[in-house]
Amino acid sequence: MTKAPAPKAPTDRTRLRRMHEKAAYDRATIDAILDAMPLAHVGYVMNGAPVVIPTLQWREGDRVYWHGSAASRSLKAGKGMQVCLTVTLTDAMVLARSALEHSVNSRSVMVFGQAEWVTDPSAKAAHLQTMVETLFPGRWQDLRPMTASEVKSTGLLSLPLSEASAKISAAEPGGTDPDEDKGWPVWAGLLPISYAMGAPLPAPDLPAGVDLPAHAANYRFGKTPK
Amino acid sequence: MTKAPAPKAPTDRTRLRRMHEKAAYDRATIDAILDAMPLAHVGYVMNGAPVVIPTLQWREGDRVYWHGSAASRSLKAGKGMQVCLTVTLTDAMVLARSALEHSVNSRSVMVFGQAEWVTDPSAKAAHLQTMVETLFPGRWQDLRPMTASEVKSTGLLSLPLSEASAKISAAEPGGTDPDEDKGWPVWAGLLPISYAMGAPLPAPDLPAGVDLPAHAANYRFGKTPK
Repeated sequence: MTKAPAPKAPTDRTRLRRMHEKAAYDRATIDAILDAMPLAHVGYVMNGAPVVIPTLQWREGDRVYWHGSAASRSLKAGKGMQVCLTVTLTDAMVLARSALEHSVNSRSVMVFGQAEWVTDPSAKAAHLQTMVETLFPGRWQDLRPMTASEVKSTGLLSLPLSEASAKISAAEPGGTDPDEDKGWPVWAGLLPISYAMGAPLPAPDLPAGVDLPAHAANYRFGKTPK
Repeated sequence: MTKAPAPKAPTDRTRLRRMHEKAAYDRATIDAILDAMPLAHVGYVMNGAPVVIPTLQWREGDRVYWHGSAASRSLKAGKGMQVCLTVTLTDAMVLARSALEHSVNSRSVMVFGQAEWVTDPSAKAAHLQTMVETLFPGRWQDLRPMTASEVKSTGLLSLPLSEASAKISAAEPGGTDPDEDKGWPVWAGLLPISYAMGAPLPAPDLPAGVDLPAHAANYRFGKTPK
């Protein structure tokens, strides 16, 4: 690995931008982003046109998974087809001294590949258990057991992480402004964005004695990777 | 408008799910979601394969806009092409009594259409001003003015809202469980998700006397529509 050269001229905006935007291809970086953000946007091509569908994703080792109704048009469109699954965490709004240096600090992963449709019922059931254990940890053993017909009516797609890349925009406060703008009398800096969980809302008909469990009280969406 | 019929059998999961998932095509619903969430995922087709890119979007009347470097591969791929722009707000994790009734309450908008490349410099400058006034309100008049060369090197795409639809998943706490699961002794309910802003991080080299303005102190990302 070689270090990026220092910018030759402070007014070279493209070069400045590259200093705080970087691509990463190492699995530790990619996995941390995928594991931190359950929400994915999956792109399919249907009748020649792109369709982008939000869904929850989870990672198991070298693959990413998502599920839905087996009858879903988009899931069926994904079977064996080239798809693009993108996961994005927004970290901060970037307020700069000039309009076009404003942006958002973010971390995203794009995974390209042919989506595999998992059909074997026992493999599917095992992945759906891992889905619960990953996206809703601490619950699996207490749930009403999954039935064969539920597994059957669920479509499950997966994608290897062999063609995955991360893009990280991490400008420092005021870091997108070229030197000649730094004296401009306007506030510049970062407005950090995070996720917060509100007070859990229990079902009105919980059996007596069923209290809020720790896994629900401590749930975090959009975790910042360690 | 007619009311949805009551479900015929409590075990009809598809029907139950439809009760808390609905599509909407009215502009008030669509506009509220677009205006609440700056982050969009735009799907392009490049060499026959889908590519999903995160970007910031803003709405002006009947169109949605996004920008980037004029040299950006994805922006250029969008010129005049069919694209799909999707915006998603996640409202709550849905914890159910069984694995496959778990989900996420969310509001999303998908906009389909041919992306128009805005080229006229003064039109482009006006839209970029609106971008700042929409995504970073309260700042435009104080910024270092935008230059003609900055406008020139910025690519701007837009899409009409004529082919837009919203999808809203709004399960009540425990609402995804069929009746026969409701006695199961496990906590069920919603874990509300919201965005929080951290303490603003000022640029280290702000001129003396430049204090944190109200627009930055009060900034909200992922606003819940009124």
